[in-house]
Amino acid sequence: MDIPATALAIRRGDRLALARGLTQVENDTPAGRELLSLLFAEGGQAHLIGVTGAPGTGKSSLVNALAAFYRRTRQVKVGVVAVDPTSPFTGGALLGDRVRMRDLATDPGVFVRSMAARGALGGLAHTTAAVVQLMDAAGYEVILIETVGAGQSEVDIVRLAHTTLVIEAPGLGDDIQAIKAGILEIADILVVNKADQPGVENTERALMSMLEMEHHGFEGDPTHWIPPVLRSIASRNEGIEALAEAIQRHQIFLKNSGEWQRREAARLKGELHVLVQELLVQAWQEALPENAYQQTLEALLSRQTSPHQAAQDLLRYTHR
Amino acid sequence: MDIPATALAIRRGDRLALARGLTQVENDTPAGRELLSLLFAEGGQAHLIGVTGAPGTGKSSLVNALAAFYRRTRQVKVGVVAVDPTSPFTGGALLGDRVRMRDLATDPGVFVRSMAARGALGGLAHTTAAVVQLMDAAGYEVILIETVGAGQSEVDIVRLAHTTLVIEAPGLGDDIQAIKAGILEIADILVVNKADQPGVENTERALMSMLEMEHHGFEGDPTHWIPPVLRSIASRNEGIEALAEAIQRHQIFLKNSGEWQRREAARLKGELHVLVQELLVQAWQEALPENAYQQTLEALLSRQTSPHQAAQDLLRYTHR
Repeated sequence: MDIPATALAIRRGDRLALARGLTQVENDTPAGRELLSLLFAEGGQAHLIGVTGAPGTGKSSLVNALAAFYRRTRQVKVGVVAVDPTSPFTGGALLGDRVRMRDLATDPGVFVRSMAARGALGGLAHTTAAVVQLMDAAGYEVILIETVGAGQSEVDIVRLAHTTLVIEAPGLGDDIQAIKAGILEIADILVVNKADQPGVENTERALMSMLEMEHHGFEGDPTHWIPPVLRSIASRNEGIEALAEAIQRHQIFLKNSGEWQRREAARLKGELHVLVQELLVQAWQEALPENAYQQTLEALLSRQTSPHQAAQDLLRYTHR
Repeated sequence: MDIPATALAIRRGDRLALARGLTQVENDTPAGRELLSLLFAEGGQAHLIGVTGAPGTGKSSLVNALAAFYRRTRQVKVGVVAVDPTSPFTGGALLGDRVRMRDLATDPGVFVRSMAARGALGGLAHTTAAVVQLMDAAGYEVILIETVGAGQSEVDIVRLAHTTLVIEAPGLGDDIQAIKAGILEIADILVVNKADQPGVENTERALMSMLEMEHHGFEGDPTHWIPPVLRSIASRNEGIEALAEAIQRHQIFLKNSGEWQRREAARLKGELHVLVQELLVQAWQEALPENAYQQTLEALLSRQTSPHQAAQDLLRYTHR
């Protein structure tokens, strides 16, 4: 791969070059890293929107409807990153859904990328960040990141986003509410999708009362964001315009309050930390004599040495 | 704190010394690390049993009943580590439950420790490992680790255990089943608790059919463990003896198949890796000139340099 040429092609909007670049970035190859470095100055422009929710809430349809809305009304380029193995974008859902998504995928202003949920989940957050960075550099102004809301890995991925939508649907039980309490804390906007189904008022009320507890005393404070609760029926395109408006209000809030820059800085700092750590471990491994690790490990497994002692012994090889 | 004296007192079975030691270990102080090192040779004896399940499955009652059963029938010392914020052991549940648990806590052969779910969840798995290690060194032969089954953090904690029980209850919906698919993969024994409630056959059948898909073709293979599905009513002490027997069968399977040693080795190797990484970052930070980090970070935030370039620049300070 001619890396400078690929970087230029990605900047020009060449979709094939972007697809090839993303594969390098996903596999964390030297070429992928160099591409990211070359294009880094171009990035930082996109509005990153996380969309998370349990299976069955219809969040893929919502991502689809939002992407189509942005294309129709604002002519911005839209990227979609699906990190959900059950998403139709990754091929996990019903054929009807996949056909609908494919309409979107034929629009040259939309780029859809689905991530394989392979290996360590912490690593998935890291890879997703790199994929989003490349799309951002390629000029995608809105990037929707879809995850299934079920754990720490999703929380890590969602931390990438400037604005996080948490999608609920009527009729979810009490148990699931308890499990998802952690997910609610990261919501900037709450959406009750499938709002034509029975129980929508109950779900809305439960969400409102959780929000009231959390944001009590901040009503009317312009420096404090209280997540709105919106209704939608994504399959019929209802409620999408109001949702897009709420997303825009949140973007303006972030920029006015300085929170946009703070999130940007925290993200870059976190990424730097991970990279430094990786490079340190790599340099240490290269400097380590071949038998030293094996010997120390054997002493540890036979409990002749403790983990702390073993770590200190191993470190001595690189600090001479 | 006199560390060698505390270590000796912990080995002698002094509960107060253990409690104080655990506080040091939980806070990851130098004293805590030294204690762990001093006592490391004593460990590796305990059977670590993970107990995980959604809120409402009654897993705390089950932990309670199991601990009481082991005390009554085998006279072993039992440790309980509760990593679940909704557990009565951590004070999160109804008063009636807490009173029942307190009976257990007055038994001098039982030691209960609840973990605060503070900070990063990855860190919680690490701290839990250290707490379990100290209890193990203090001579607790069975250690029950209770977590709420809701994500990657719990999976990480459960990886500590030799034997993992996944607790279900009748009447959980389809949504929750989808979310917990990942949790099922780590189950060594499945328990349908609250087996006096309606729907117990449905839950059992759903679990059995998931197990059949996963273990198809391995029936009768003595080198392959197929998780049994058991019923219990923990609040009435029903099904506890059969559960304890299944746990013992699993322990024998682990030891005969060599899996016990493999899990032990994988755990120690993982711990060593984390400690080496920590020490490397620490040594690098100490060697870094004061302004270097700040300057590099500013260049990164203004996008004059990329994260990879910034990391390499920073590494140069320690590789001269």
